[in-house]
Amino acid sequence: MVDIATRVYNHNWKIDPIVRSLIDTDFYKLLMCQSVYRNHRDTQVTFSLINRTTSIPLADLVDEGELREQLDHIRTLTLWRGESTWLRGNTFYGKRQMFRPDFMEWFEQLRLPPYHLERVGDQYELTFEGKWPEVMMWEIPALAVLMELRGRAVLRGMAKFELEVLYARAMTKLWEKIETLRDLDGLKLADFGTRRRHSFLWQDWCVQAMVEGLGDSFVGTSNCLIAKNRDVEAIGTNAHELPMVYAALAEDDAALARAPYDVLADWHEEHEGNLRIILPDTFGTRGFLDNAPDWLAGWTGIRVDSGDPAEGAEIAIDWWQARGEDPRQKMVIFSDGLDVGKIVELHKAFVGRVRPSFGWGTLLTNDFRGLTEGDRLAPFSLVCKAVSAEGRPTVKLSDNPRKAMGPKDEIARYKRVFGVGEQAAQEVVV
Amino acid sequence: MVDIATRVYNHNWKIDPIVRSLIDTDFYKLLMCQSVYRNHRDTQVTFSLINRTTSIPLADLVDEGELREQLDHIRTLTLWRGESTWLRGNTFYGKRQMFRPDFMEWFEQLRLPPYHLERVGDQYELTFEGKWPEVMMWEIPALAVLMELRGRAVLRGMAKFELEVLYARAMTKLWEKIETLRDLDGLKLADFGTRRRHSFLWQDWCVQAMVEGLGDSFVGTSNCLIAKNRDVEAIGTNAHELPMVYAALAEDDAALARAPYDVLADWHEEHEGNLRIILPDTFGTRGFLDNAPDWLAGWTGIRVDSGDPAEGAEIAIDWWQARGEDPRQKMVIFSDGLDVGKIVELHKAFVGRVRPSFGWGTLLTNDFRGLTEGDRLAPFSLVCKAVSAEGRPTVKLSDNPRKAMGPKDEIARYKRVFGVGEQAAQEVVV
Repeated sequence: MVDIATRVYNHNWKIDPIVRSLIDTDFYKLLMCQSVYRNHRDTQVTFSLINRTTSIPLADLVDEGELREQLDHIRTLTLWRGESTWLRGNTFYGKRQMFRPDFMEWFEQLRLPPYHLERVGDQYELTFEGKWPEVMMWEIPALAVLMELRGRAVLRGMAKFELEVLYARAMTKLWEKIETLRDLDGLKLADFGTRRRHSFLWQDWCVQAMVEGLGDSFVGTSNCLIAKNRDVEAIGTNAHELPMVYAALAEDDAALARAPYDVLADWHEEHEGNLRIILPDTFGTRGFLDNAPDWLAGWTGIRVDSGDPAEGAEIAIDWWQARGEDPRQKMVIFSDGLDVGKIVELHKAFVGRVRPSFGWGTLLTNDFRGLTEGDRLAPFSLVCKAVSAEGRPTVKLSDNPRKAMGPKDEIARYKRVFGVGEQAAQEVVV
Repeated sequence: MVDIATRVYNHNWKIDPIVRSLIDTDFYKLLMCQSVYRNHRDTQVTFSLINRTTSIPLADLVDEGELREQLDHIRTLTLWRGESTWLRGNTFYGKRQMFRPDFMEWFEQLRLPPYHLERVGDQYELTFEGKWPEVMMWEIPALAVLMELRGRAVLRGMAKFELEVLYARAMTKLWEKIETLRDLDGLKLADFGTRRRHSFLWQDWCVQAMVEGLGDSFVGTSNCLIAKNRDVEAIGTNAHELPMVYAALAEDDAALARAPYDVLADWHEEHEGNLRIILPDTFGTRGFLDNAPDWLAGWTGIRVDSGDPAEGAEIAIDWWQARGEDPRQKMVIFSDGLDVGKIVELHKAFVGRVRPSFGWGTLLTNDFRGLTEGDRLAPFSLVCKAVSAEGRPTVKLSDNPRKAMGPKDEIARYKRVFGVGEQAAQEVVV
């Protein structure tokens, strides 16, 4: 029996929207958005797409018309009533009413602001300007749209069984990873793969596979929509955009030096427990920890997102010990370019010494490497960052010089202010 | 939108029938059945299940009640009108009305005769007695039911994503085989995998994958139902049961020696072109060809189904040359325990010297080796054979002593009559 109505309905769509919900985004975006809405709701920022893998000619691969259709569709979205109810009523990180009524009222009215799109050479210039809490909500859907459109362009040339086998291979590949991870005692791992996923449906499959394959070792997904639909935990804390924008707003070097701690002071007021996770690498981990106020050592853990991850964890352990804290009680969340080999290695090296945890991103939800001729579905390093605030450029140093961004003179100034010396370069895979 | 009717309909089935059509069987069964119906319609025969892989305790793995349900369901089947129309009207091997009206009238009335099922140790004794044209139709569905029930027993213990990944792996495995075969110029290959398939749906998938992946190199399937549904050629000629039963009916040694040629004389009257394929190994290939009448050398080709396949082909080439025939015009159909490696090797060795062709069976439609823990889905060597005719035991020697069957003294007599000496043993995988 063919369900005629469904078939007709499916063929009625003028486009196949990639992002169909405002909560098809990372949970930490919502947490940060609420914080920004409280503390900096009128700050003007610009976010910009940056393709770090310049060998991928995005503008040749993705049709501009299709891209506009997808972005325009996102601008039509508002929060669904059920989504609002879930955000208002669900328990996040053990806490009810994580999102305050005033924030929810604002969010329920939100439509994403205009975008600016222009082809420049073989790349797209895609920027978003406006009030910080509005503009910041573009980051994840913009990335997801570009990644999936690039994928669709490749998939369009494939026959039915080729497609079936492609997904069979991808499923097999992921399941083999899960089987490896299954053997790790005490593993804690979350999906952080929304932004560079192969597609929404594929991310959704990955999450379900993790639920079945890893049981309690799978602690949740950063994707709010999938968390809601699949009844798993929404996971995430905060990101570089907070210290980057706070720093750009600083009036002088002294204020700049204080900026990353101001971010966490604001956070400290709002959150407790497992949401108190330090992201120390925006302007160099070592200097950040050396100069950190004592109350920060009392936080629950740290997220290691650039540089050599084992070294980052060791630095944190030393720092906690120097501040009289017991590292065994602390969480260390690894989230930079992870794949199974690195997860196994880091878990074995740190379990028992700290409480390791993993935010597994692109190579969970988009490991299509080696699955097509010419590897045309391999993921690449696309980001969407706050590049300026109130007309001033932002800077990111990170613990890997290849991830640094900002104007040269500003980078030099930040390095001086934050006492960053030589850094070891790490290859940026995704 | 859930299609409620379909869901309810699916849940209404008391059993999930494995064989749902009388033409879910091998094409050569129908050709042979027509021949038997014309020449030996009242001959009493017994077919019996034989599990050559005694390490597989079929009666422990497959529930007797379920087995009876499936066999009983097959006994309720009659030819559907559309199936009858297809058999009457379709072109097979380039010929219209392959099936004569009197045979079709009989077939339209056919229901399969009773079966005898008994547990003996950890195996089932499953036999079918009655008129040859009726009983012979049990062979393929009986095998398919046992193979699939054994598979289902294993699958029942698997979770949803495990199942999805199992099939993803099987698809990947088959597609990699197809990608290897794609590179072979002039390959001709057919699906012969009905009897020991993993399941009907899986065989159907395999056929579709071959259609898409191999194009014209895929010449068709032995399965009539799939050939009909997927609009591909139905492929097959004749099998050992004909000479085995003809031989068992022989009154003395002279008649026995003549029996295999009588089979082909009857066939010669009925068929021409690509249906004139000699199956020479029932009582040893060498002796059969040495003593063959000259008109047999004019047949289109030969099927190599036991012994060392390259040696079998060389024997045929020498024989054709000795009889003044051009081997380059002759078909050699390899059909014994094939997998990709052997297909590639044989194709390269014989293309140009003869017209090689491949009947790929179990390792096409049931290569689940290595896909589950304990390899509990690996195929095994199950056959269903004519074991007696008019109360006399049948004998098969073949070119591999491990495939020989029949009472010891009769084997000795056949070896003497057919001049079979030492034979090299070949491992029987499937």
